[in-house]
Amino acid sequence: MYSAKLERLLKSAGASIGDRVTVTKDGHNYSGTVLQRPDLGDGDALVIKLDNGYNIGLRPEALTVEKPAAHLGMGKTKAPTVAFRPDKPAIALIASGGTIASRVDYGTGGVSAIEDPREFLFNVPELADTVNIRNLVKPFTKMSEDMDHTDWIALAKAAAKELAGGEGVIITHGTDTLHYTAAALSFMLPSLPKPVILLGAQKSSDRGSSDAGMNLVCAAHAAISDIAEVAVCMHGTMNDDHCLLIRGTKARKMHTVRRDAFRPVNDTPLAKIWPSGKIDKINRQARKRSDGEVVLDIKFEPKVAIVKAYPGSDPTVIDYLVSKGYKGFVIEAMGLGHVPTFAGRSWIETIKRHTKDGIPFVTTSQTIYGRINADVYTNLRMLYHGANAIPGEDMLTETAYVKLGWVLGHSADQAQVRKMMLTSVAGEISERSRSDTFLA
Amino acid sequence: MYSAKLERLLKSAGASIGDRVTVTKDGHNYSGTVLQRPDLGDGDALVIKLDNGYNIGLRPEALTVEKPAAHLGMGKTKAPTVAFRPDKPAIALIASGGTIASRVDYGTGGVSAIEDPREFLFNVPELADTVNIRNLVKPFTKMSEDMDHTDWIALAKAAAKELAGGEGVIITHGTDTLHYTAAALSFMLPSLPKPVILLGAQKSSDRGSSDAGMNLVCAAHAAISDIAEVAVCMHGTMNDDHCLLIRGTKARKMHTVRRDAFRPVNDTPLAKIWPSGKIDKINRQARKRSDGEVVLDIKFEPKVAIVKAYPGSDPTVIDYLVSKGYKGFVIEAMGLGHVPTFAGRSWIETIKRHTKDGIPFVTTSQTIYGRINADVYTNLRMLYHGANAIPGEDMLTETAYVKLGWVLGHSADQAQVRKMMLTSVAGEISERSRSDTFLA
Repeated sequence: MYSAKLERLLKSAGASIGDRVTVTKDGHNYSGTVLQRPDLGDGDALVIKLDNGYNIGLRPEALTVEKPAAHLGMGKTKAPTVAFRPDKPAIALIASGGTIASRVDYGTGGVSAIEDPREFLFNVPELADTVNIRNLVKPFTKMSEDMDHTDWIALAKAAAKELAGGEGVIITHGTDTLHYTAAALSFMLPSLPKPVILLGAQKSSDRGSSDAGMNLVCAAHAAISDIAEVAVCMHGTMNDDHCLLIRGTKARKMHTVRRDAFRPVNDTPLAKIWPSGKIDKINRQARKRSDGEVVLDIKFEPKVAIVKAYPGSDPTVIDYLVSKGYKGFVIEAMGLGHVPTFAGRSWIETIKRHTKDGIPFVTTSQTIYGRINADVYTNLRMLYHGANAIPGEDMLTETAYVKLGWVLGHSADQAQVRKMMLTSVAGEISERSRSDTFLA
Repeated sequence: MYSAKLERLLKSAGASIGDRVTVTKDGHNYSGTVLQRPDLGDGDALVIKLDNGYNIGLRPEALTVEKPAAHLGMGKTKAPTVAFRPDKPAIALIASGGTIASRVDYGTGGVSAIEDPREFLFNVPELADTVNIRNLVKPFTKMSEDMDHTDWIALAKAAAKELAGGEGVIITHGTDTLHYTAAALSFMLPSLPKPVILLGAQKSSDRGSSDAGMNLVCAAHAAISDIAEVAVCMHGTMNDDHCLLIRGTKARKMHTVRRDAFRPVNDTPLAKIWPSGKIDKINRQARKRSDGEVVLDIKFEPKVAIVKAYPGSDPTVIDYLVSKGYKGFVIEAMGLGHVPTFAGRSWIETIKRHTKDGIPFVTTSQTIYGRINADVYTNLRMLYHGANAIPGEDMLTETAYVKLGWVLGHSADQAQVRKMMLTSVAGEISERSRSDTFLA
């Protein structure tokens, strides 16, 4: 509830919470949607969600409110039905939540989940020109920050099942953890005859400037292409010109909000894909579509942890996690693969103690780009040869984490785990790190 | 010691460990330096360090060894004396170790520290054309992975002292933790009338392709410029054309080995600097050289930890660290600033429990680029408004970590800590995140 003064202002304009209004204050006009008053102790202010997604609070003094004629596309929409086009190549869509499956909630001003996944196809009618979405499934309902290995397994199972009856699968996903899931599916679907394409959106699909539509259309083209990989399909640039198709083990979200946040790390993209359907293949080694069987391999050990090593960091966190039953570690190390070594709190001594008990330690670099070096400095040789840590080559931390869980699901034998971690199973280790995909 | 067979081969060529040789095996020629046999259980092999820095092991069968005429610049060099040029602007050089102050050790094949910091100036005679290095100090001897707040304090003290008698200071440093130190000095020298420039090298200064020389010369130009900031000066591109001068709180090592690994994050560079002395100022808000006093503010609380939140992660690590006396946390969160929330292991509930006891939690994003959003999703509002976490805006994890230690060194009052963490003290928070410095 707003103050009596603001309630009067709204009432005189015929507006209420959730309505689109134009307000004037100090000579400025603002158009947006009236939100409930947030309980933030900010005093009396009318809160409007602007079209750019930001909220603005306006004090009641000298404020005018107008309610324009009904505005198409904003506000509450009915769940539409998705168009099925049996004449087009058939794919399945697996919806797992996230911004792409959300819409602005004009009650709270936040973003909340769409219940019926068909709803977010409403704004992308051109999807029906490319593919026939023969099945639309939603294996679970949760926020992507709460997903874990059980959800990766559910998605891998759903993808394997849906691939049987169509040309490919697209999976919509929250962007914040999308690359963890993409890596997990890459390992859990080790033999893959058809494309499994993950995508998300940085802005919810009911927003005019959403990236959801183009990502969906490009992902649909990828799903019927001959690139049989688990891959991420998201905007390649800030402009709405093309998407990048990035190998699931080499993709990383590198910006909180930019639509081109997903970048290939130490790898080229598999392809550029335009909404028109044009595909420019960049990686010629990508797996090709085939008549083979889908292999589903979901054995997974969840007791794996990522621990970051940094100046002044405390290695006893590792002892604590081992005491809680953790069976493997990814150490996000400094630069070439360094950890602090000084007496009394030496990471090398701690790691050595636990590798002797058969617990594997894999290192990745905080630099994100580049490759671990196990030799060039004395301390590196002590860590990798003396203490038996496994250099994670040019793997992403996220990928190494998911991979170690998957490898430990298959074997606890130290030599076998080392061998599997150092072998590229799903393109996660490049023979030579590509430096031409680095930063501007 | 090598096997008798290899020792004979070496002896007949007149070569011994540390000598440069050319060897032939299976029709291939290799030039490099004979290393001691590493004790890695690899059997009998002659180990050569190649000019590209890699080691190669060669079995004795059908191996020939030749020792070419003496080769200038490789092998053991005498510590030279640095040229002092009283007619040039005076600066001080503080050496803190790292690759730039290392050389290839032809005994072990690794890289080891130069004892006399003057030695690495030997290969950069052009430095004397720009500046007079009036003092050269080495406050401690340790590897950069072992540096912590005590070393940051020692460097801040040394910089404050050396600034008194010259135009500026340059600090040579290992690259892996250089950005932690740069952030620390930015806070510990809050009022700075002259430049404090940090630099390192990705290849040791005795290597022909080292980046040390150009970084040193550009840093010297920065140290006598009118930009009075703590800043990092390293290669701007893969080519040896110019360096970037990056604010100490906004620099991050983004590649394990590339010479242009240091990038400005959510910020423009302060300037581009050419070895010729040309300076192209990009950030017009940079602090200008003045007659003011150096302020040294080294109060620091070391019991601060970085903890990474990721799918399936265990928040009880926080409880463990609190039980060990930790007084503040930087949570490296997912995407916009998310942590797992599900019942039984909710990060939000864990954080709420500890903020109630007055322990601050600051979040940063794993995406590195972009800004934390405290509002757009329900779970974000629960974390930042309900559980009182402090959104780290667009601060780097490393910078937020160092800043929280520095802030807690000044106040344990929750409201005061929050206020200081949300206020830009040393350019660490941008008003609007710059997206034009993002990835290619």
